[in-house]
Amino acid sequence: MSNENAMVIFQPSGRRGEVPKGINIIEASRLLGVDIEALCGEKKVCGKCIVRIEEGEFQKYNVVSSMENVSGWQEDEESKFINLENREKGFRLGCCAKINGDILIFVPEESRSGKQIVSKAARDIKIDFNPAVRIYSVELMPPDFENKIGDFERLTDALLKEFGLADLTMDLITLRTLPSALREGKWVVTVSVWNDKEIIRVRPGRKNRSYGIAIDVGTTTCAGYLCDLTTMEVLATSSLMNPQCKYGEDVMARITYHMTTPDGLERMSADIIEGINGLIEKAIAQTHPNKKKVKGEKDEAGNDLYVEEIEEGKTYLRLTMNDIEDVTMGFNTAMHHILLGLNPEYVGLAPFPPVIHHSLDVKARDLKININPSSYIFIMPNEAGFVGGDNVGVLMSEEPYKSDEIQLIIDIGTNGELILGNRHKLYSSSCATGPAMEGAQLAYGMRAAPGAIERISIDPETQDVDYRVIGVEKSRKESNPEDMKVKGICGSGILDVLAELYSSRVITKTGVFNKKLLKENPRFRKNPDTKQPEFVMAWKEESSIGKDIVITQKDIRQIQLAKGALYAGCKLMMKKMGIDKVDTVKIAGAFGTHVDRTKALVMGLFPDCKIESIHGIGNAAGDGCRAVLLNAKKRAEANWCSRNVEYLELTVEPTFEKDFMEAMQLPHMVDKFENLVGVVPDYILNQGPKGPKMPN
Amino acid sequence: MSNENAMVIFQPSGRRGEVPKGINIIEASRLLGVDIEALCGEKKVCGKCIVRIEEGEFQKYNVVSSMENVSGWQEDEESKFINLENREKGFRLGCCAKINGDILIFVPEESRSGKQIVSKAARDIKIDFNPAVRIYSVELMPPDFENKIGDFERLTDALLKEFGLADLTMDLITLRTLPSALREGKWVVTVSVWNDKEIIRVRPGRKNRSYGIAIDVGTTTCAGYLCDLTTMEVLATSSLMNPQCKYGEDVMARITYHMTTPDGLERMSADIIEGINGLIEKAIAQTHPNKKKVKGEKDEAGNDLYVEEIEEGKTYLRLTMNDIEDVTMGFNTAMHHILLGLNPEYVGLAPFPPVIHHSLDVKARDLKININPSSYIFIMPNEAGFVGGDNVGVLMSEEPYKSDEIQLIIDIGTNGELILGNRHKLYSSSCATGPAMEGAQLAYGMRAAPGAIERISIDPETQDVDYRVIGVEKSRKESNPEDMKVKGICGSGILDVLAELYSSRVITKTGVFNKKLLKENPRFRKNPDTKQPEFVMAWKEESSIGKDIVITQKDIRQIQLAKGALYAGCKLMMKKMGIDKVDTVKIAGAFGTHVDRTKALVMGLFPDCKIESIHGIGNAAGDGCRAVLLNAKKRAEANWCSRNVEYLELTVEPTFEKDFMEAMQLPHMVDKFENLVGVVPDYILNQGPKGPKMPN
Repeated sequence: MSNENAMVIFQPSGRRGEVPKGINIIEASRLLGVDIEALCGEKKVCGKCIVRIEEGEFQKYNVVSSMENVSGWQEDEESKFINLENREKGFRLGCCAKINGDILIFVPEESRSGKQIVSKAARDIKIDFNPAVRIYSVELMPPDFENKIGDFERLTDALLKEFGLADLTMDLITLRTLPSALREGKWVVTVSVWNDKEIIRVRPGRKNRSYGIAIDVGTTTCAGYLCDLTTMEVLATSSLMNPQCKYGEDVMARITYHMTTPDGLERMSADIIEGINGLIEKAIAQTHPNKKKVKGEKDEAGNDLYVEEIEEGKTYLRLTMNDIEDVTMGFNTAMHHILLGLNPEYVGLAPFPPVIHHSLDVKARDLKININPSSYIFIMPNEAGFVGGDNVGVLMSEEPYKSDEIQLIIDIGTNGELILGNRHKLYSSSCATGPAMEGAQLAYGMRAAPGAIERISIDPETQDVDYRVIGVEKSRKESNPEDMKVKGICGSGILDVLAELYSSRVITKTGVFNKKLLKENPRFRKNPDTKQPEFVMAWKEESSIGKDIVITQKDIRQIQLAKGALYAGCKLMMKKMGIDKVDTVKIAGAFGTHVDRTKALVMGLFPDCKIESIHGIGNAAGDGCRAVLLNAKKRAEANWCSRNVEYLELTVEPTFEKDFMEAMQLPHMVDKFENLVGVVPDYILNQGPKGPKMPN
Repeated sequence: MSNENAMVIFQPSGRRGEVPKGINIIEASRLLGVDIEALCGEKKVCGKCIVRIEEGEFQKYNVVSSMENVSGWQEDEESKFINLENREKGFRLGCCAKINGDILIFVPEESRSGKQIVSKAARDIKIDFNPAVRIYSVELMPPDFENKIGDFERLTDALLKEFGLADLTMDLITLRTLPSALREGKWVVTVSVWNDKEIIRVRPGRKNRSYGIAIDVGTTTCAGYLCDLTTMEVLATSSLMNPQCKYGEDVMARITYHMTTPDGLERMSADIIEGINGLIEKAIAQTHPNKKKVKGEKDEAGNDLYVEEIEEGKTYLRLTMNDIEDVTMGFNTAMHHILLGLNPEYVGLAPFPPVIHHSLDVKARDLKININPSSYIFIMPNEAGFVGGDNVGVLMSEEPYKSDEIQLIIDIGTNGELILGNRHKLYSSSCATGPAMEGAQLAYGMRAAPGAIERISIDPETQDVDYRVIGVEKSRKESNPEDMKVKGICGSGILDVLAELYSSRVITKTGVFNKKLLKENPRFRKNPDTKQPEFVMAWKEESSIGKDIVITQKDIRQIQLAKGALYAGCKLMMKKMGIDKVDTVKIAGAFGTHVDRTKALVMGLFPDCKIESIHGIGNAAGDGCRAVLLNAKKRAEANWCSRNVEYLELTVEPTFEKDFMEAMQLPHMVDKFENLVGVVPDYILNQGPKGPKMPN
């Protein structure tokens, strides 16, 4: 690296690169294609561009990041927006802090302009009403010398008599609130009872609502579904980038961080818990009216005055954290261990045993989740070291264990998780797809946010390109180049580009660029720095970051590895099960929602299946967490599943390596895709041992 | 108060008085008869006389105590013995700090020279072996690809197979230790299981011992019994003055403190919990060898060097706080509420309902009791607002609910608690005896410690006195006056002195001093300050505090009130039950151990009973806590008892007031004490409506 340059890494996007020393963080973010809100145009007056300089050694990037590596604090400008506590944590205004050396910068969600669109909305799935937390209202006789029994017994005797609730206990923290609740409510109270066992909250008077939240904690993104436990309605959803991304984008990197950093586990755990508290707060905020600053007005304490923007006819629940009485959480096994402070080391070491499979009921206060303190957090059970509670969530949502059909369920997140089977037998496995299918770790990969290419087509003759970008209504060909504002390519565009590059003969079936084209088309070129071939999807003029948006040879390899791993995994599971076809393919995750099913089949992401039997099932892991939130019987079912789904460790299967290599081919040469006959051009299906014979 | 004097209160003894300003705390302690260790004779070199100046307003004494009211810190002398943290808490050397104004001083147990002899040793009572915490050792197969199940399931599957333990759960804090324990123990571990339900500790390797402690938390003193849960042996006992005494000596005063001080409840709770942690530490310390300072030697860090004094042939368990895996606690209802942070306000308001009767299992960490953090503290159930878990402890120890005999059980502590009945019916009640029977709140009352008169006799003719003092082998008449070193009178001496004052005609049957004697005997005199009559038990020369040790008219009233309340309570319960005699009288507490049974009967503490059927049962409340520690079945029994003993509120009974007044008489005129015929002089039994006819 030249002495004039510094290495800058932005989190959570992971975008990184060298920038000239002396520029400020906003300028660097533009150079590297990272979105930071800067409403005032770097006039240092809007305070929107708050970022945090992370301190420490980040082995992954070979960078030692330090607050010393940016210019000094600008008291006049920065202290208006950043208090002392946050200043000490490394917060700065991006427009004020100039880069003097290597840094790793965390961009908080509030400061990101292209806000993440996490496609984790709740689907309509059938859930039986049976919440673990239920409310009961009772009226009691006040004590006198004839009946001088204690408060708790007065209450539980009434609950037994009126509702048949026997042997109830009460958490000490709740018990402390009992005497005042009874007297404040004039001996009428509403109790929240967990699993017919324990009273976890007492409120004065009669209440008819209680609330819970289901949280799907992904390696990269987390989603929360705030639910009314009495109506099963989803009141709000919220999402969050996992703040642990700074320790490493995949779970192995985080396990390594734990093993090489003395308090690494505690730090990662505290970060994700802080994040989850924020996620719940964001969901709750949606039950309040928006607040709007009254220009120029101050309150009595001299702070800016805010008023609530009340929408007429709308009811606001105005929930508080204390109103959240039940939480369910699902995550992969490593994330599960890290959040709970369980040593994740052995999850990363063969034979990858988790510390625990079984679900846990942990007091919210023991995890420092700031909801009603006597409540429990239900932690989904794990299937294996690499298939966790999120996969159990998928099972809970899709219920293949109740079906006669053979289902293949593919959950493509940062890792690929597979389920195969029906009510007679279920297998699960995990394959190291890497995050390429989600758009991560590609040269211009990005998540599904404004500026991302989501669909692309390449003319087979001219190799000319048309595409659609999230946030822009018209396609490239229907628009002016400068209207496209491309920043990168997201998951749904990635399979497109691979299929199109192949169909248009830019790459061969082995995934290598067809060098013959090099001189014919300016889109196909060698990168001046890396000397590696690349293909230009969008020109600089169409981009908002002032760069050509390309796909590189390395990118294509990443996608091939991902799809090869998936396909080989599916086939191995089918072999284990003794079947040669599946009835249904379900694709979970944002990828499944947006993918072109035919192209996915053509590219051989999974074995042959009727096109109409391929379904995107969205965030099935999150739906499963919601199912166990609203139906307590599902909790026992989840535990049964976690022990009765047989986990296959693919990497120890003798044929895996060979299958994997073969499945990396484009489209591939392993399967006969009968369901594609008549759907795609014949040449794709006309396969021989050396792959399909292509026209031209 | 003169300007030259300051009010000084010593805690926990409660001794108080005015002292001249300018003297140091050691000198003040001598003037007020308080023992503080001062080995070096105030040369400021031994560091034994550490005391704490309490800050705040103490309404009870009408005193505002402040560190400002003593002379400045003496860096050279004091910082050798008191670190900065303790200095900030108000700790000082008694020999250095001179008194400039009103102060309340807490004397830590280590600094007390006449160490408390709390007669709370464990009795031999029959307890079935059935501890709530049991240990099991298992050897597991290490994981491999054939058997890659998680650590927790590997363990619980083995526990099910080997010991039939089904559906075990594990606390998260313990779960965090599981992976390393398994691997450190080479897949051999010992688990501690609570109530066949939850694994609360995992230790590497095979272990064959586990430990628990039963704690009786009294209003004034607390006692702990450290037990081996595998052999039921009592390994150590320890005791403690309840640090809450500074907020008030009885429970009503502490309830008032809560109601008048914003964070009063939190402070009192934190104090008793700190005290209990210290109590457990003291018990544990007895399993280690003593440490002895090596004169002049320093360790590498420059600290004084200590060596262990190992006694040959003795085994030292060297337990740590973490080795304590189960705790049971019993206390009166107000103390129960205060320790648990439950509002005690309504316990003090008619009809006195407690917040809860039922026992509680509270995680040690939730109470900040620093034992094995996943362990539970078993909190004994309460009978009523004024009869708590300590009384349930007495029931557990004596089991009148299993007996055909009608038992009367009297527990004399700071309050009097009564149980009457047998297996057909049990009553309990509480009577406001005040602490006089324990020696508190009398002019020279003190607890059973060296210097306390424990036996006394007064010649009926000459009114001359003989007595015995704790810590002195010979009686007054067999010794030189200066060898007696009297400081006061304790519980067992108090009933003696009342009986002797009556028998020797110093007081009349109404408890009033017989004024005729005033001129005849120098021991009988008017106090020059109060002008009230008093009787000198020991002359200044026989005392170690340079004062005549007297019993005053007010003292006698206190004792009369106590015995009157007790007797009237017993009789009312008997009436309720429809009986006119009891089969057995059991007296719990230190008082019961030392009392002269005949004198107690003569004085009419309780209704007539055969002398040989009157038993001292020691600290039965503590024994009951030990019984529930070692036999988990007793926990259900305790809950049954707490709901099936009928509590009688004496004060609302219409005849109570009259019965009480009559029972205050000496000896009294209510009962025919047939069992005293031939045992005591006839004149005592020759009662008419106006009481016995006395000789002379």
